[in-house]
Amino acid sequence: MADRSPKREVPPAPPVRVAVLGCGNVGAALVAMLGGDAEGIAARSGVRLELAGVAVADTGRARPGVPDGLLTGDAKALVEDPGVDVVVELIGGLDPARALIESALAAGKPVVTANKELIAAHGAALSAMAEEAGVDLLYEAAVAGAIPIIRPLRQSLAGEPVRRVMGIVNGTTNFILTRMSEAHLAYADALAEAQALGYAERDPTADVEGHDAAAKAAILASLAFRCDVRADDVPREGISSVSAVDIAFAEQLGYVVKLLAVAERIDRGGEAATPEISVRVHPAMLPRTHPLASVRGAFNAVFVEGANAGELMLYGRGAGGGPTASAVLGDLIDAAHHLRAGAPGRRAPQTLAHMHPADDLRCAWYLNIDVLDQPGVLAAVATVFGDHAVSIRSMEQVGMGDEARLVFLTHVARQGDLMATLEGLRALEVVEHIGGVLRVIGDEAES
Amino acid sequence: MADRSPKREVPPAPPVRVAVLGCGNVGAALVAMLGGDAEGIAARSGVRLELAGVAVADTGRARPGVPDGLLTGDAKALVEDPGVDVVVELIGGLDPARALIESALAAGKPVVTANKELIAAHGAALSAMAEEAGVDLLYEAAVAGAIPIIRPLRQSLAGEPVRRVMGIVNGTTNFILTRMSEAHLAYADALAEAQALGYAERDPTADVEGHDAAAKAAILASLAFRCDVRADDVPREGISSVSAVDIAFAEQLGYVVKLLAVAERIDRGGEAATPEISVRVHPAMLPRTHPLASVRGAFNAVFVEGANAGELMLYGRGAGGGPTASAVLGDLIDAAHHLRAGAPGRRAPQTLAHMHPADDLRCAWYLNIDVLDQPGVLAAVATVFGDHAVSIRSMEQVGMGDEARLVFLTHVARQGDLMATLEGLRALEVVEHIGGVLRVIGDEAES
Repeated sequence: MADRSPKREVPPAPPVRVAVLGCGNVGAALVAMLGGDAEGIAARSGVRLELAGVAVADTGRARPGVPDGLLTGDAKALVEDPGVDVVVELIGGLDPARALIESALAAGKPVVTANKELIAAHGAALSAMAEEAGVDLLYEAAVAGAIPIIRPLRQSLAGEPVRRVMGIVNGTTNFILTRMSEAHLAYADALAEAQALGYAERDPTADVEGHDAAAKAAILASLAFRCDVRADDVPREGISSVSAVDIAFAEQLGYVVKLLAVAERIDRGGEAATPEISVRVHPAMLPRTHPLASVRGAFNAVFVEGANAGELMLYGRGAGGGPTASAVLGDLIDAAHHLRAGAPGRRAPQTLAHMHPADDLRCAWYLNIDVLDQPGVLAAVATVFGDHAVSIRSMEQVGMGDEARLVFLTHVARQGDLMATLEGLRALEVVEHIGGVLRVIGDEAES
Repeated sequence: MADRSPKREVPPAPPVRVAVLGCGNVGAALVAMLGGDAEGIAARSGVRLELAGVAVADTGRARPGVPDGLLTGDAKALVEDPGVDVVVELIGGLDPARALIESALAAGKPVVTANKELIAAHGAALSAMAEEAGVDLLYEAAVAGAIPIIRPLRQSLAGEPVRRVMGIVNGTTNFILTRMSEAHLAYADALAEAQALGYAERDPTADVEGHDAAAKAAILASLAFRCDVRADDVPREGISSVSAVDIAFAEQLGYVVKLLAVAERIDRGGEAATPEISVRVHPAMLPRTHPLASVRGAFNAVFVEGANAGELMLYGRGAGGGPTASAVLGDLIDAAHHLRAGAPGRRAPQTLAHMHPADDLRCAWYLNIDVLDQPGVLAAVATVFGDHAVSIRSMEQVGMGDEARLVFLTHVARQGDLMATLEGLRALEVVEHIGGVLRVIGDEAES
């Protein structure tokens, strides 16, 4: 084999000079790669990347991996330095990240970012600005860390009629749900464990209430359907109300509970002038045999259903310095190649889509209802379901002293009808408490 | 959301005219997409693709999906037609596919192909030709159908130090192994079922003996390690010797049996002048919790381990007209964008790698040995293991009348030592038969 692989030298093109803004976990990992493996990266990728500077808020802190003289507190000056070819934004949040990216694009410099919050809020405007400047704005690292998902949606599936994208895109909540399921922990205990291990913040709201997943859902939807969906457009439910009881019932019924970011095209039949999509974040019950069901712990995965491609799943580490920096590096190499070729990556056209009314969404549901244990209760409860056209697929009753617990799986029902059913049930005197209410997704019950 | 997504018309650039060579399952699916969804593809991708012609060997057969006047028996003339911008080769096999692709490249036309056999034999030479011509040679569809794997290896992981790629890349064998495992079928019965369902050819050799997987392993290795590996370089073992007994033992021990295409970098410590890689195809036992273990039936998946990215898995449909044509369409859109931008996709540098000697490969092993049931046998057998420095991790003995079956799991051992052990065992009079011999990959036993 060796003789037919003459070693070609990396062409002696001038290096592409990279400014890194922000030096947290991801920034430090990227700086270490660029510094420690420059030759390896050049040999593998065909471009030589050189660190031009690292901008941080606190220049007083020791940064062991950053070479002398490259640290600066003035991010704006670094971005505008004529010796900088590409800008990597790893500060996060809306400001000052947005202004810095705008400066870079205005100066004709490609930008690579891992900033999901910013892209989910202003991605369309920033992409338009990049397009006008004729440079790249790349953000593979903004969704699901090292997993290649932005590039497949943009390129591999550029022509594919995507039907649905479902992602486990938040490692914190997936870790908590996995521990609840496998170690039979209560939500609070699983959360405490995640916090102790550093998987969850002391204030876990952004993760457990689905804000982080909603930003990623907006980005995935925008790419899959070529439209402009923002985090604020995405209705979300978190996992803090998912109980150990629901997870145990799910298991008994052959399901697992996962927090999903869902973006789907709604087929309204006929030729609708403007396609409708639904984008949302909520926990759901998935059949144990579904590929997403085996995504455990802090791992992420995105499941894509296309009309021609069929089912695809992309799986890997969704967070962490090394994996996220790896995705940034892939983008950086793309940007460097495009800079050298004098042509940015492609621009996909933006199309128009309407948000499908949430009430019209259709899926099967799991409900867990505590009722008084007395004659006629099941009939009263079933009547409420029937009144709202929600058909019951299965019911199980568990005695608990004076009370009984009723666990229902419904057939596919309109979300509006299910919500009306819940309201009707709450009005019944015999209903003590409505526990878990979960969507059932991904099995034959869907159709 | 609607108001901020002004509908932009697809720019009125001239269409990119596509010649399709071959009109089997994949070709017919592609022609149907290009014909039936031209507007949709243009709206989603930003490029307008127009079918310029379809070349087939037998022009007499009815081709319901091909528009009148576009069918031709003269593939070479179609490739050379100045009205053709891009050539899609879906004939398969070495000849005449190779000459047609060379003609297209020589004429400065980008080529998209799904031809694993040709790429695994002549990929490096054809890529060099494309590079010289300044056009694309793209082959996402050649490995694992609709699954984006070529593009992630080329782009997303362009800078990543990839350690190992392991793929379930042959749907026929995965279907057979899944049926043997889940329905407890014998190999012959599972094969017959696969043949009845159209998953296996009447002569199943190319699939069950690992030839198909070896071609894909060569392509994956060439991309992951930027070197020139050919199908002929890849040692292969098929699945025809895997027995129902081995699969049952694997299950009992917490493993599943899969046919794997493996490409890995061997770390020899220190600074070897030239890296060594190992590329091979063989059945292996994987822990039930490994992501590849849940890839069932005719699905494919490729598992990538990178130094920074960590573990990634890309999963989906590895064959079939629609999925494969979907991958071709993604490449076609890339090629069209590059044509319009006047710049082909990047060229990765080619590097030198040596093949690691197979005898030096190290992994844990499963062995299933039938022996005479008499005193001292286990000691004799264990002595042979010890003589060859193969350490036993666990042993289970199952009585069977006059005979006993010994099932061993070893610790990690050199392949050469294991082979010498097998030879030593065969020479023992008390050893009646050596049944299954399988590598154990992907769990803590590896290290």
